Formats: sequence, structure tokens, C-alpha cells
Amino acid sequence: MRFDVLTLFPEMIEQVCSHSIVARGIESGLISVNAINPRDYTKNKHKKVDDTPYGGGAGMVLMCQPYFDCFDAIDKTQESEIIILSPQGETFNQNMSVELSKKSHIVFICGHYEGFDERIKQYTAAREVSIGDFVLTGGELPAMCMIDSISRNIDGFLGKIDSAHFDSFSDGLLEYPQYTKPRDYNGLKVPEVLLNGNHQDIDRWRRKQQMIVTLKKRKDLFDIFRKNCNNKDDIKLLNEVISEFKL
Amino acid sequence: MRFDVLTLFPEMIEQVCSHSIVARGIESGLISVNAINPRDYTKNKHKKVDDTPYGGGAGMVLMCQPYFDCFDAIDKTQESEIIILSPQGETFNQNMSVELSKKSHIVFICGHYEGFDERIKQYTAAREVSIGDFVLTGGELPAMCMIDSISRNIDGFLGKIDSAHFDSFSDGLLEYPQYTKPRDYNGLKVPEVLLNGNHQDIDRWRRKQQMIVTLKKRKDLFDIFRKNCNNKDDIKLLNEVISEFKL
Repeated sequence: MRFDVLTLFPEMIEQVCSHSIVARGIESGLISVNAINPRDYTKNKHKKVDDTPYGGGAGMVLMCQPYFDCFDAIDKTQESEIIILSPQGETFNQNMSVELSKKSHIVFICGHYEGFDERIKQYTAAREVSIGDFVLTGGELPAMCMIDSISRNIDGFLGKIDSAHFDSFSDGLLEYPQYTKPRDYNGLKVPEVLLNGNHQDIDRWRRKQQMIVTLKKRKDLFDIFRKNCNNKDDIKLLNEVISEFKL
Repeated sequence: MRFDVLTLFPEMIEQVCSHSIVARGIESGLISVNAINPRDYTKNKHKKVDDTPYGGGAGMVLMCQPYFDCFDAIDKTQESEIIILSPQGETFNQNMSVELSKKSHIVFICGHYEGFDERIKQYTAAREVSIGDFVLTGGELPAMCMIDSISRNIDGFLGKIDSAHFDSFSDGLLEYPQYTKPRDYNGLKVPEVLLNGNHQDIDRWRRKQQMIVTLKKRKDLFDIFRKNCNNKDDIKLLNEVISEFKL
């Protein structure tokens, strides 16, 4: 997978990529991340990338020319996915992450401080994506979140790094609580069931905890799970939860 | 505002903070961001921060001792807000961002690769927050997103940096399209109304575009706006949109 990021702050992308799982993905050759600066494509003397908005108003607007030319300079195919980070876009989620992980090339177009000239969206025919209903200064952090998330879903990427703890959302329920040594830390104790070595009991306890945690923290997800639940063992545990919490 | 970030990757936080608006906020003295590493608080020879889960299963679990001691080392008050980044948490949004911007101290607790021992959540009494329904490798990027977003809402932070383009969500409608020079770029033209200098026409066009953009991209937000709309001018434009789009 190749990720190209159009950004006025390429160092921000490069530095985050030098850490953690993304760095290991780059080392392994499974992904590459390239930051390209539209400022390097300006044709004006002062390397200006923005100008005042037509029709007046506060702030500046990112200009067509540097973004068009920077975008054109990227080696693309019919299959390339073009994404513009924008608070107005469809909301990124785990399903979109899995879908995008099947691609071989994704271009992220990041704004910073200011809006894009609308024609940049037209010209690049980019899909507008947002990571949530909150305002950020630029598209760099959202692009990095998406690169981290998408990479994790690429076949073979996680390998041994993977852990069951990150299964949230995979079957519509949140995670069960985890505990490690010691059994008692300053009076805070590990639940007895996890210590008795009965794996059937442990599995049942964990599954039921998943339902309880989801009910308490994400009623919306719990309701969907409840509606669609058709596994015999799950139904039995679900009925216990329903009765205990008087639902 | 003081942000403390408990993280096994402090350089990741420090590097992102050296850029862009967060760096300017730090320079201006309005915010400070400190990364603290629980690994520096380990009491075992190998500076281990994790161990295998009780009850079995893949992956490792972050241990109580380094996180408890690191957390205790932070200077806190009754007013300090403690946040643990977790895919299970309540979803961060603009309202929460504004609410948190009124605090004077926020502590972020980041996991990485693996889950927390449940007792860490108990001991710190942290509020669990997620930035969205997708899985990430660690809490560092979400913490950085939240620091960027929250900082923007601190009184006096944006000053002249502010721009009307980032008003998304502020009144429940998305932004209107923006254009800057030139009027015609490779045949892509700026809408005539923005060039004629009639500010009443421009304001009306922009407001109506906000409604249309919101309708097309975020029907959920449009429906809420439609239900609550009680401004006379807005109602008139809204009726035009409703009739044009046969709603």
C-alpha cells in the first residue's frame, strides 16, 4: 500500500511515521508513506499557497494552482483512492478502514488553517472524509489516524503484533476487561474467575462482560447486537444480562 | 491550560507539538504540553510495562504499577480532568471539546498496542473517551487530535488565526464553498454571485449553500437544523431549498 499525503507540513507526517507500528510497516515494506508539499509547486515568487476569499470574509483560501499541480505530479492509477480531509466529509469508521485497506494507493489531501478553493475538490474528485464531529487545525492528524487504522487492516500487517484487545467493533461488542499480574495491587483485585483455570467459565465470563460493558458504555451498539443476536450461547448470556439489568 | 500525556512514546507527542498551531499556543504561554513515560516509573529490572493476561488470550496487558506511580507523580487538583483514550469511550465531539476547553488541567492516559489492566481505569477514575468507531494502535494520535481541538476553543487562543472556514458545526450547518483567485482556472469558474460585490446577495447565497451542502453531505444535521430553524431569513431560504430539492 502506498500512501501519499499532500500537506503544507510534511515534517509532521514524517515524524509520526518514524514511530510505532507505522514505522514497522514501512520497514517491512508493506506500506510506504510519502509527504508532498503543494508549496513546492507554487509558481509565484513568494511561494504563496493561499489568497483572500471571493465575496469577502475572514481567513484565507487555499489556491487551485499549487494543489492542482502537486496532485498532478503524483503517479496515480484508475484504482487510486483520493481522499480530502474535511469536517464536512462522511465519517471514517472501522468498516471504511477495512474497505480502504484493500486498495493499493491512497492519496490524502490535507488543508491547514483554512479552507480549500471549492475547485480543488472538483478537480481531484476526492472523497471527503472526516474523522469526527470536531474541528481541527489541519488534515494531518486525521490523515495519520487513517493511515494507522487502515494499515492495521492490511493482510499480514499486524502479524504477531496483533492482540485480542483490539477487537472492539469487530463483532459489534466492546472488549471485556483485562487483568495482569499481580492478583492484588493495593487492595484492587483480579476477578476470581480469571484465576481458577476453568476456560469454559472464563470464556463465558468474558463474553458476558463484553455485553455488560457495551450496554453500559454504548447502548446504541448493544441494541443492534441484541436485535441481531442468533448464536445459542450468546442468547443465553444475553438473557442473563437482560434479566440482571431489568431491561 | 496544562495538558499532561502519559505515553510510552513521548517523542511522538513532543514532535507533533513542535508544529503548527499547538506550537504557537505553547510559545504564547496559553497552553503547555508535557509527555510523561510510565516506563520511567517501572520498579522491575527490565523496565517492563506489560505482562500476560489472567485467564489467557493473545497479547499483553499494561500493568498497574508503572501507570499508578506515573499517574501519582502528576501534580493534580480537584479540577483536573482525567481522560483515558479507549475505543470503548464516549465519542469526542465539538461540544465535549468546548466543555473541556474551560478546564485548567487535562491528563491523557494513552495505551499502545495493548489493553490496560482494568484496575488502571478504576484507580485513575478516568473518563473513557474515543475519537471515533475505528481501531488505532495507540492513544497518542487521538490525544493529539483532542489537544488541537480543545486548544482552538480556549479563549484568546485563535486570535487572528481564526477564520470563518472552521465554523463547521457551530450553528449546526456545514460550511459554504469558498473560492479565491483566479476567477477562471482551466475552465473551472467562480460562481458569478461572488464577483458582483452585492453583499446581501453573497450572504444569502452562502447561507443557502450551507443548507444545500449540509443536506447533501449530512442529512442528519440538516434534519435537526430544519426542525429547530426559527430565524425568519433562514426559514425563507430553507423553504427555497425544500422546494428545489422536493423534500
